[in-house]
Amino acid sequence: MAGDVTRAAWSGRFGKSTAPLAQRFGASIPFDWQLWRYDIAGSIAHARMLARQQIISTAALGAIERGLAAVRQQIDAGTFAWQLEREDVHMNVEAALGEAGRALHTARSRNDQVALDLRLYAREAIVRLGELLARLQQVLVSQATQHVDDLLPGYTHLQRAQPISLAHHLLAYHEMLQRDLERLADGFARVNVLPLGSGALAGVPYPIDRHYVAGLLGFERISANSLDAVADRDFAVELLANLALCGVHLSRLGEELVLWSSAEFRYLELDDAYATGSSIMPQKKNPDFAELLRGKSGRLLGDLISLLTVLKGLPLAYNKDLQEDKEPLFDAVDTVAGSLELAAEMLATSTFNTARMAEAAGQDYTTATDLADYLVRHGLPFRDAHHAIGELVQRAIAAGRQLGDLSLTDLRSASPLFEGDALQVIRAEASASARDVPGGTAPAQVRAALAAAQKQATVNATTLARLQTPCETVERLLDSVQQSA
Amino acid sequence: MAGDVTRAAWSGRFGKSTAPLAQRFGASIPFDWQLWRYDIAGSIAHARMLARQQIISTAALGAIERGLAAVRQQIDAGTFAWQLEREDVHMNVEAALGEAGRALHTARSRNDQVALDLRLYAREAIVRLGELLARLQQVLVSQATQHVDDLLPGYTHLQRAQPISLAHHLLAYHEMLQRDLERLADGFARVNVLPLGSGALAGVPYPIDRHYVAGLLGFERISANSLDAVADRDFAVELLANLALCGVHLSRLGEELVLWSSAEFRYLELDDAYATGSSIMPQKKNPDFAELLRGKSGRLLGDLISLLTVLKGLPLAYNKDLQEDKEPLFDAVDTVAGSLELAAEMLATSTFNTARMAEAAGQDYTTATDLADYLVRHGLPFRDAHHAIGELVQRAIAAGRQLGDLSLTDLRSASPLFEGDALQVIRAEASASARDVPGGTAPAQVRAALAAAQKQATVNATTLARLQTPCETVERLLDSVQQSA
Amino acid sequence: MAGDVTRAAWSGRFGKSTAPLAQRFGASIPFDWQLWRYDIAGSIAHARMLARQQIISTAALGAIERGLAAVRQQIDAGTFAWQLEREDVHMNVEAALGEAGRALHTARSRNDQVALDLRLYAREAIVRLGELLARLQQVLVSQATQHVDDLLPGYTHLQRAQPISLAHHLLAYHEMLQRDLERLADGFARVNVLPLGSGALAGVPYPIDRHYVAGLLGFERISANSLDAVADRDFAVELLANLALCGVHLSRLGEELVLWSSAEFRYLELDDAYATGSSIMPQKKNPDFAELLRGKSGRLLGDLISLLTVLKGLPLAYNKDLQEDKEPLFDAVDTVAGSLELAAEMLATSTFNTARMAEAAGQDYTTATDLADYLVRHGLPFRDAHHAIGELVQRAIAAGRQLGDLSLTDLRSASPLFEGDALQVIRAEASASARDVPGGTAPAQVRAALAAAQKQATVNATTLARLQTPCETVERLLDSVQQSA
Amino acid sequence: MAGDVTRAAWSGRFGKSTAPLAQRFGASIPFDWQLWRYDIAGSIAHARMLARQQIISTAALGAIERGLAAVRQQIDAGTFAWQLEREDVHMNVEAALGEAGRALHTARSRNDQVALDLRLYAREAIVRLGELLARLQQVLVSQATQHVDDLLPGYTHLQRAQPISLAHHLLAYHEMLQRDLERLADGFARVNVLPLGSGALAGVPYPIDRHYVAGLLGFERISANSLDAVADRDFAVELLANLALCGVHLSRLGEELVLWSSAEFRYLELDDAYATGSSIMPQKKNPDFAELLRGKSGRLLGDLISLLTVLKGLPLAYNKDLQEDKEPLFDAVDTVAGSLELAAEMLATSTFNTARMAEAAGQDYTTATDLADYLVRHGLPFRDAHHAIGELVQRAIAAGRQLGDLSLTDLRSASPLFEGDALQVIRAEASASARDVPGGTAPAQVRAALAAAQKQATVNATTLARLQTPCETVERLLDSVQQSA
Repeated sequence: MAGDVTRAAWSGRFGKSTAPLAQRFGASIPFDWQLWRYDIAGSIAHARMLARQQIISTAALGAIERGLAAVRQQIDAGTFAWQLEREDVHMNVEAALGEAGRALHTARSRNDQVALDLRLYAREAIVRLGELLARLQQVLVSQATQHVDDLLPGYTHLQRAQPISLAHHLLAYHEMLQRDLERLADGFARVNVLPLGSGALAGVPYPIDRHYVAGLLGFERISANSLDAVADRDFAVELLANLALCGVHLSRLGEELVLWSSAEFRYLELDDAYATGSSIMPQKKNPDFAELLRGKSGRLLGDLISLLTVLKGLPLAYNKDLQEDKEPLFDAVDTVAGSLELAAEMLATSTFNTARMAEAAGQDYTTATDLADYLVRHGLPFRDAHHAIGELVQRAIAAGRQLGDLSLTDLRSASPLFEGDALQVIRAEASASARDVPGGTAPAQVRAALAAAQKQATVNATTLARLQTPCETVERLLDSVQQSA
Repeated sequence: MAGDVTRAAWSGRFGKSTAPLAQRFGASIPFDWQLWRYDIAGSIAHARMLARQQIISTAALGAIERGLAAVRQQIDAGTFAWQLEREDVHMNVEAALGEAGRALHTARSRNDQVALDLRLYAREAIVRLGELLARLQQVLVSQATQHVDDLLPGYTHLQRAQPISLAHHLLAYHEMLQRDLERLADGFARVNVLPLGSGALAGVPYPIDRHYVAGLLGFERISANSLDAVADRDFAVELLANLALCGVHLSRLGEELVLWSSAEFRYLELDDAYATGSSIMPQKKNPDFAELLRGKSGRLLGDLISLLTVLKGLPLAYNKDLQEDKEPLFDAVDTVAGSLELAAEMLATSTFNTARMAEAAGQDYTTATDLADYLVRHGLPFRDAHHAIGELVQRAIAAGRQLGDLSLTDLRSASPLFEGDALQVIRAEASASARDVPGGTAPAQVRAALAAAQKQATVNATTLARLQTPCETVERLLDSVQQSA
Repeated sequence: MAGDVTRAAWSGRFGKSTAPLAQRFGASIPFDWQLWRYDIAGSIAHARMLARQQIISTAALGAIERGLAAVRQQIDAGTFAWQLEREDVHMNVEAALGEAGRALHTARSRNDQVALDLRLYAREAIVRLGELLARLQQVLVSQATQHVDDLLPGYTHLQRAQPISLAHHLLAYHEMLQRDLERLADGFARVNVLPLGSGALAGVPYPIDRHYVAGLLGFERISANSLDAVADRDFAVELLANLALCGVHLSRLGEELVLWSSAEFRYLELDDAYATGSSIMPQKKNPDFAELLRGKSGRLLGDLISLLTVLKGLPLAYNKDLQEDKEPLFDAVDTVAGSLELAAEMLATSTFNTARMAEAAGQDYTTATDLADYLVRHGLPFRDAHHAIGELVQRAIAAGRQLGDLSLTDLRSASPLFEGDALQVIRAEASASARDVPGGTAPAQVRAALAAAQKQATVNATTLARLQTPCETVERLLDSVQQSA
Repeated sequence: MAGDVTRAAWSGRFGKSTAPLAQRFGASIPFDWQLWRYDIAGSIAHARMLARQQIISTAALGAIERGLAAVRQQIDAGTFAWQLEREDVHMNVEAALGEAGRALHTARSRNDQVALDLRLYAREAIVRLGELLARLQQVLVSQATQHVDDLLPGYTHLQRAQPISLAHHLLAYHEMLQRDLERLADGFARVNVLPLGSGALAGVPYPIDRHYVAGLLGFERISANSLDAVADRDFAVELLANLALCGVHLSRLGEELVLWSSAEFRYLELDDAYATGSSIMPQKKNPDFAELLRGKSGRLLGDLISLLTVLKGLPLAYNKDLQEDKEPLFDAVDTVAGSLELAAEMLATSTFNTARMAEAAGQDYTTATDLADYLVRHGLPFRDAHHAIGELVQRAIAAGRQLGDLSLTDLRSASPLFEGDALQVIRAEASASARDVPGGTAPAQVRAALAAAQKQATVNATTLARLQTPCETVERLLDSVQQSA
């Protein structure tokens, strides 16, 4: 009998059952069961449309809805019996409907069904990730607000370069995350497209109403080409690429947290709740979680490369290779979500050692550029000024002196253009304040940047709320069905 | 003397010159010379702003502009002497200005300068790639227009699945390319941001006017954080990710062109101008260029992974590692541009073997689903219909018969629900026409899709024209300077 | 109290427990529990050495061994309570020993312990994979033995090129797998090195006997540098690289099985037990498992890139990032093992359509090169012969004739050098037989290759047995401890 | 006329020339010209064999050899006219021979010819890279020899962990490079296999002597299967994987050089010849070259992924996609060669700030583990000792005291087991010396490791000399031909 657990739903044309070895190799149920909410919601919408278009009867719709409600309850309760022999989430759910399920697959293929489920998943993931990005931005802004006037040495090439505001440094990450959020939001429109109705690859020979289904499921558009609709995983690649880049941002943050927690920098003290010890060295306080922020970029690059490689060279339309899309996507979404969540709490509970930063900000000739700029303002071409100060620094290093140790006479040995006010520009505060251009580190500019960031937070919240709305249809559909007695 | 070719511009503080071995290892001039147009245009804009803000004199501006005009003419004429010792394009251009150049670097660092140049490059590349995408779309539409009513077997799992329109198949690629184009356009806004004015990392201590420079160079926004502005290569990663995905699309097209050119498929005849022979086998006509469309996806994935890996774990702000951004970006842009150009001409000159396709479209039980759907329309649940037809096919295979060979009696052996009209649904044309849903392969739907594609072409052209406008500022600035006598 | 589940083993220096969020983010127990057999075996060997060196007492050793035996039994029975709060497999096992465990970590760190466990895992994995490679080779040889004289068209550029023996084609994969096996075996020596005794990073201040531990665990060498020993994951990268390449080989095999199963090729009939159907199209028989052989290369490339990225730029010695080594390694090993197993059974049960192959072997001018070579043997330079036959083929295509349709007169129109025996060289069998050079497709050469492959199988078996021997120490150690009452 | 520059060598069967656009897209001559030495040497060997087997005449051989000598001289002199229309290095060389070349391609295809050239290239590259690895090892050993007794803090998680010898730290890199060298050497046997004689894919119908050609070219074996021989790029993938891992090692070294050069660490002073300045900040001394050592790992991962992706899913035998093998291989070889060379000179000229290191080695409780181990030796289980010392450290941190500041009374507050000798174990020197196990950091062990490294250098030299021998055949063959007058 067809529909029998021991025989696949497509067994009519086959002389044998699938070999158990092959079943294990090919089954996606060990990971795609996670899609069950989307699968059931999609089936509800599909069945309602079928009934509305009189392709199935109202009674059949009722049976399907009651069955789906029962399945949902069982899964929620942990009592649903997932079966490897049923290959995937779609067949597990359908088979559990029993007789009622035998009409549900009318005008539908697993090819458009799985594309639907994964799009619903990706849509929700984008919103969830967007909210976590916004939360981490908020922590950065909150910390930055407290440290506008705290200076540390800004670095290039990991060499102390120029004094900067700690707030300014933190806000650099705010910018990265803002781009991450915008990329996710841009991609949403390409995710939020209904593939259902594409059938196996060519469309379906039933008078279906795709726009009605799209409306029930909150999709903005329907797919324009049925072959493309079942063969396309661009939305997943795009999401993976965005997550890989976000992961790289977090790896940079992780690296800095590791550096700043070191005995050499001592710029940051992690809260004990966000550090770990050593199994052997009693004194150790390790920035494990910051290291993981850094290291988890590896799997994100791997996830991206996985799917791109899977798609390479595939002819149209659906191929089984596409089953390999889910694990990297699930892994990347969970990894970035966990990382963002962790980063937010770790940063929120960290203490900056501002005294140590301030001390470092004024050392190692970090204001040498200001001396060169002084000379430029007094008429020297920049390259000549740069060269004169370069030699001055060389002499100071040899003599073991910092810039702050230099007298006006010393300065005048580099250039007669120096006057008494030159001793002022050597101060770290003066240096930072002088960079009073939009985007610069002067306190006024940093305060303006903080205000802009807060305004941006409102815009982001509106954007995320807009993206959230279609996602809510899934839960609404799930709740709208009544379970059978 | 500073500025001497044998000494770097920053040599003031150093006791020795760079070792020749290290110079060769570190020099970027072998590849970044390609940025010269952007570098000169950026310098013109920067110098004009400096003069306008009275940071340099009008005379100094004049000398700079004349010098830059001369450099441009020499590069255009192929007489400019690029020097490895000058490390990069920036120092090569500046040093060539001689005395005039010594003030040009005021309020600017190579860190914001190189970010500027690369953004100007990426901006232009997006428009160029967008136009090539649109051109390939146009070829697809043009070929599709001629083949709406030509059927071939649609494939899933590379097994003949259902009859589809050749135009429908071609338009699937139109959709992929449309997403590629939209992703590029979405990214444009993140590229078109002025980093200049960020200095080395902290902003600059001069009363510069960043908005004025942005206006001269056609930038929509200025960067909001100076550390981020010099450390950020997101725009390059995003472009690389978009190109990798586009390359994967082209690899799928390439695979299909290879398959269709084979003796086994014989669906396509490449023009002799777009095929090659064998050095040893006289009969061979090889689809070399289609294979390269497929194979070049490799380097695009490589280019993407290269830059993501470079960025992983880098602390703020600028690090020399970032120099590794250019080669993958240049390679990816050139690869995709060349591939799109080639694909367009190759497709435009190809001949489809529609007779062979039509023959195949009706074979191998491609309309078995239509029989199942017939039964559903006559009251059978889909799963039962599927099973009945599966067994019918199994018997037909065993008997060596095609569906077209079956009589009504044969059909009735599968189900008594079959009537005489069932023999009609077995025809390939009937099958395709029945898929009359939006996005489906019925001729009417395909014609609607073609009309939509043509409408889309107009929208795309408008988009690309809008993106093209800021790009034109570069050439305009280059042309606006007068060369010295 | 230390050792309490609610407090980490290293909690002495900490004012707070780890945040639950951070615990979840950092815990490796969800995947590293798989290492338990190696972890327990390593602890047995370590404890015995500690007792032998009188670092712990015989009584302490007894308690540890009894405890480890109990843990093993519980894990085997599925009753062991893994605890997330205990972070990893090491702490879960140690904590379960209770009081007895408090001395076990003497002269050991988790840094060298985890390196040990992973090396034991990798060592066993290599042997397991080697055996599966040998099994697939055996299937190839077995199928090849039956098809030495069956011809098909060999392809280049997916164009029919020259007739070849089906056995010869199959044996090409034998060669790829042989290199895979040799690479694995070469890497074994770099895996089979004892890291224990390196402590956290610097060695340990106890009179341990590393060679004794190495002997107990079957290691050939001990690591030479303690920093390197805890920071090194080369063995895992090397294994991942070997598996990625093996996966690429399987992707090529998968692609060919897909092509050959198509209606267009019809060279291969998969057994029904190794194919699947469609949820919607009743006629479909899909080569799902061959497609997965192809598609799973994606995750293997991803796994490799993951670990390489993790390692990039890490300073010495151990960093938490290294925890990210396990999941890609486990995934790659399981993926390739499953793929090899599947491929072997799928190939063993496949039927080749030799009649169809033979027909194709003689079509499409596959013996044109033989005509050119005929002319060369009769005195024409190769390039001239190639050109003359190229034109002959062009005329034949235009006339719709195959080479077999040509008369001697036709041949002489291309060159007067042709005599009657030229009509013989056009036959596919003659073409294949003529390629009678070592490595060529002539039946005699293919039979020689089969004989060599069988000889190689013996060599491989010996190699694998040699590698298997040290692996057996793990089970032996596990079995040697007696459980406490 | 065939052989005309304006017509390809395979033009006989074609009605049109290749489109210029396609020619540019498909030509490999812009990069494969680098293979000319191998191509000519291969042709010499092939032609000699053909004459020896009486397939071509002695006169023809003479003409070929004179022609090849002339080509070589022109290339050496920079006067050879490479032509894009001739597609690749093979056709450029052959066409330049004029009439003499028309027989050279007898019994050879470009498919086996390019495999030959690339294997000859890879073979030489391995030896060159091996020598550079050995050179860098030598520098490490040389620096280590001078710093056996200089201590620095060893790090885990970038936290100071335990005092170690600087020599011990440097030798960790020696171990990594040793594995790199061994992997390269292991792969050599898989490179050094003659593919020539495989023809296009099936072998050749001439009585060739493959072993004779192998002997002339220094190959150890001949390929066993002609299809595999032309389709196989494993040797290139294996080399790329080895280079990616080597690049990751260098990225770790680069990271440490960057860290150690920072103001915060100050462990290392780069020679001014191996550092650069800033275009804007006069005081900067940037570790540019160390950063590039780190950053160039990106392109190496990219190169590896490129080729793996190219190969994914390719059916047998040769496909044009394989042309994409060369650029990543050339790039990776040049990148690693340049990096190794640079690293050696940069390290050789660096100065270690041993005073600063020594100071740091004794701070931050780096010897806390020694206190725990003291307690273990006095009878406490390790976990209890660890916990007691953890709390001691916590109190010391709170009190702002280092371990060296503690009195015996302080120690006894942690445990009554402490006696006066405990104050000794706190010393950094004592800690390092205590780790007197093979592979540990005690001076005696480090000296033994240095001796072993020197012994290893001799073994390596022998290995490299053995691999060098076959490579010399290429130059010998090139020199053996006499140029025509």
